[in-house]
Amino acid sequence: MSRAKAVVVGVGAEDGLGAAISRCYAANNRHVLVAGRTLEKVEKVAATIRRNGGRATAYAIDTTQEEDVIGLFDAAMTNDEDGAPADLVTYNAGKNLKIDFRQMDASTFEDFWRMNTLGGFLVGREAARRFVPLGRGSVFFTGATGALRGMPGFAHFAASKAGLRMISQSMAREFGPQGIHVAHVVVDGAIDGDRVRSLFPGAFEQLGENGMLNTKAIAEAYWQLHLQHPSAWTHELDVRPFKESF
Amino acid sequence: MSRAKAVVVGVGAEDGLGAAISRCYAANNRHVLVAGRTLEKVEKVAATIRRNGGRATAYAIDTTQEEDVIGLFDAAMTNDEDGAPADLVTYNAGKNLKIDFRQMDASTFEDFWRMNTLGGFLVGREAARRFVPLGRGSVFFTGATGALRGMPGFAHFAASKAGLRMISQSMAREFGPQGIHVAHVVVDGAIDGDRVRSLFPGAFEQLGENGMLNTKAIAEAYWQLHLQHPSAWTHELDVRPFKESF
Amino acid sequence: MSRAKAVVVGVGAEDGLGAAISRCYAANNRHVLVAGRTLEKVEKVAATIRRNGGRATAYAIDTTQEEDVIGLFDAAMTNDEDGAPADLVTYNAGKNLKIDFRQMDASTFEDFWRMNTLGGFLVGREAARRFVPLGRGSVFFTGATGALRGMPGFAHFAASKAGLRMISQSMAREFGPQGIHVAHVVVDGAIDGDRVRSLFPGAFEQLGENGMLNTKAIAEAYWQLHLQHPSAWTHELDVRPFKESF
Amino acid sequence: MSRAKAVVVGVGAEDGLGAAISRCYAANNRHVLVAGRTLEKVEKVAATIRRNGGRATAYAIDTTQEEDVIGLFDAAMTNDEDGAPADLVTYNAGKNLKIDFRQMDASTFEDFWRMNTLGGFLVGREAARRFVPLGRGSVFFTGATGALRGMPGFAHFAASKAGLRMISQSMAREFGPQGIHVAHVVVDGAIDGDRVRSLFPGAFEQLGENGMLNTKAIAEAYWQLHLQHPSAWTHELDVRPFKESF
Repeated sequence: MSRAKAVVVGVGAEDGLGAAISRCYAANNRHVLVAGRTLEKVEKVAATIRRNGGRATAYAIDTTQEEDVIGLFDAAMTNDEDGAPADLVTYNAGKNLKIDFRQMDASTFEDFWRMNTLGGFLVGREAARRFVPLGRGSVFFTGATGALRGMPGFAHFAASKAGLRMISQSMAREFGPQGIHVAHVVVDGAIDGDRVRSLFPGAFEQLGENGMLNTKAIAEAYWQLHLQHPSAWTHELDVRPFKESF
Repeated sequence: MSRAKAVVVGVGAEDGLGAAISRCYAANNRHVLVAGRTLEKVEKVAATIRRNGGRATAYAIDTTQEEDVIGLFDAAMTNDEDGAPADLVTYNAGKNLKIDFRQMDASTFEDFWRMNTLGGFLVGREAARRFVPLGRGSVFFTGATGALRGMPGFAHFAASKAGLRMISQSMAREFGPQGIHVAHVVVDGAIDGDRVRSLFPGAFEQLGENGMLNTKAIAEAYWQLHLQHPSAWTHELDVRPFKESF
Repeated sequence: MSRAKAVVVGVGAEDGLGAAISRCYAANNRHVLVAGRTLEKVEKVAATIRRNGGRATAYAIDTTQEEDVIGLFDAAMTNDEDGAPADLVTYNAGKNLKIDFRQMDASTFEDFWRMNTLGGFLVGREAARRFVPLGRGSVFFTGATGALRGMPGFAHFAASKAGLRMISQSMAREFGPQGIHVAHVVVDGAIDGDRVRSLFPGAFEQLGENGMLNTKAIAEAYWQLHLQHPSAWTHELDVRPFKESF
Repeated sequence: MSRAKAVVVGVGAEDGLGAAISRCYAANNRHVLVAGRTLEKVEKVAATIRRNGGRATAYAIDTTQEEDVIGLFDAAMTNDEDGAPADLVTYNAGKNLKIDFRQMDASTFEDFWRMNTLGGFLVGREAARRFVPLGRGSVFFTGATGALRGMPGFAHFAASKAGLRMISQSMAREFGPQGIHVAHVVVDGAIDGDRVRSLFPGAFEQLGENGMLNTKAIAEAYWQLHLQHPSAWTHELDVRPFKESF
């Protein structure tokens, strides 16, 4: 029926942030287009949503490929049995890894830019193309503290996330007055999940309860952004565990 | 009964932000201590809340006076018929006015500091003293874009609001890990209300619907901050009308 | 004679930054008005300059007192045997100390504001009053990293230095187009001198050569700012020892 | 004989910033490797330097190509008749153009990244590889206000310059303690030259004397950075014409 669709780009493991955002949007009555690189992963996330009574469709796309992104929006903006055209898009794709600056080759540096910046541009541009004529819609980007501070071993990451942040700022300044809510969420800290638990075995015990970012809690922040009234929109906010130093 | 109290410092006219925050907290089941400089105004705000089924008590205090602030917290932290000790404090006092830099006298510069910075320190310190032993509580500050950028004619305002922002940052870094949620809300734009409507007669017509900050929408942002889970707390966010350039 | 005067406010011990700036300006052919709180100290700094062939006059003033600041500028802007009216003023007064937030009383918080913010306002305003009609002159402020980040135990310091930074920004935006060069120098790190050596006995050995800020090197940065051509003025720069983490 | 070499990457027209930096370094007794995309242009700049008694060699390279950058550094770090190995490298390549966000294709967005970010990474990485073992050397990046604020029509530019800024920050934090001076110069405003004069015919008359950035004055700021003592290094400074609003 007429419920609207929502798009989440950059969905991976079920315990990751992309999956949590997808579940959150579904729980708020959206038909969610769950998009990510690995078919098996996005299908699993979509299936779980459906099993819990929500509505979701999996899309395996390469967010760094123009045609994949355009195809995704073609599906998202159609008024069909899945719902009304999307009014909510979230770019959550991204990767991070500490790499020695002097050892890094150009192709590695480029990979981070493709995933963290170019994909955000493609999704943001496509959202602007579709939303501006309608005069409404939310476009949210998952950012990082690295966008604000370049630390040793993270030049590639900081450069790519700072690029994403500037896309978000430019879009907010241009499209906000046209009714599009563009926001950048600075996620600061380790996200609780299998990835961190396997990389840093003792982290959970060391940080204690709520010491790592809870994906459900972050997802809620995105949803609250979408609910904001146009007379008081937020463009940027940070989220971090209460124990995280900053 | 066992509902908790909430404190709002810096409440003036009914169409101002302080009053809107007070109403919002009351609507969310808090007994609100409505504190402001002018007895008549805070009583009016509290009376309206009560008339609409909420609970509120008016306090006429000078937020730049240490003993006034301490007295307010003595009332707020008591477990009495008004409710359980407060777990939510908002410092909303502040003033703004464009003043020629070379004409400004020292006492005017000081007045802005007293209202915008010192009062925030006194309220923030008192909240820290009371909340830290309990290991919980939210302390929110109403900030301004001036805290981030000093513009001609606003040196006094920018200096005082930047001071407030640093108090908030220092508190967040120190008391966040102790369970206290400290946040700074950068309010950017004209707030719809009698003050702006009388100062800039054509502003409403020029900016159109939602072109000015709606106090109810801003207040909702404060409440959502309070609802955030400790694993994903926000320390700073901006709010501005969708049409506002920034 | 026709050499111009220069004013340095906030001069203390001979190994401090204020004294080094004074010596630097004198070495560049200025008659320096060496102003600070303690008569003995400023006289010592001025005497050393004169002994080395430079020209300097000591002024014991309280930079937080309007009349003291006005009197200093009266002397600085006179065309007399000491030289032409000043075209270079530096506000270097300031103090820092870690203080427990919950233990701090209002008067301590105020003291930091008076020294770090109000004094800067008084000097900046007086410089603007005198320089703008002439269409030239440099006004430099000694800032700190605390102006950009509020850390635990430094709320009072960060608030006061952030206030000073906003004064500088507002002045730069207003008076730059009128020919006044306003700049803010973010001094980041420990300044080598007796104060640090006595507070942190092992610091020098631990940090090694050039591990602490050298006052002569910082002073040179101020002088280079003054030499900048109006077509490429700097408003803000940081200075820190090469080893300092940031 | 043993004078050291200096490298300037991103040299174009004689009235551009790259050429001015090259002339400035040559005037300060460096043998300058003048590197840029167009052979004719770099040869012209180098020839002018030589005609005026300086020393310079032109290198036509594509700064976005790893092997070109490596080859340039091979020449720069050789101890030969041109001089001792370089201890000063400046990345000045970059381009800017306002482009409608929704009309921009992925390859345009990528072009800006290649020129403004990737080239900076390649030059920065190569400089780090060569300078760190020697424990000395300066690496300066020409930045822009766009690195700090994304404006409508400049998402591609802001994203790429913000990326460059983060490379600079990461390098400064990692290599500063190893004796490498890394700095980022935020150039804010129109640079006086044929390009601006042809794009905005009335700009010079409208802005008046010193209303546009003078390339010689900017170049001097770079040179002063190189002269800074390691106990007081600057990592970031802005330069803008005195009339420029910011």
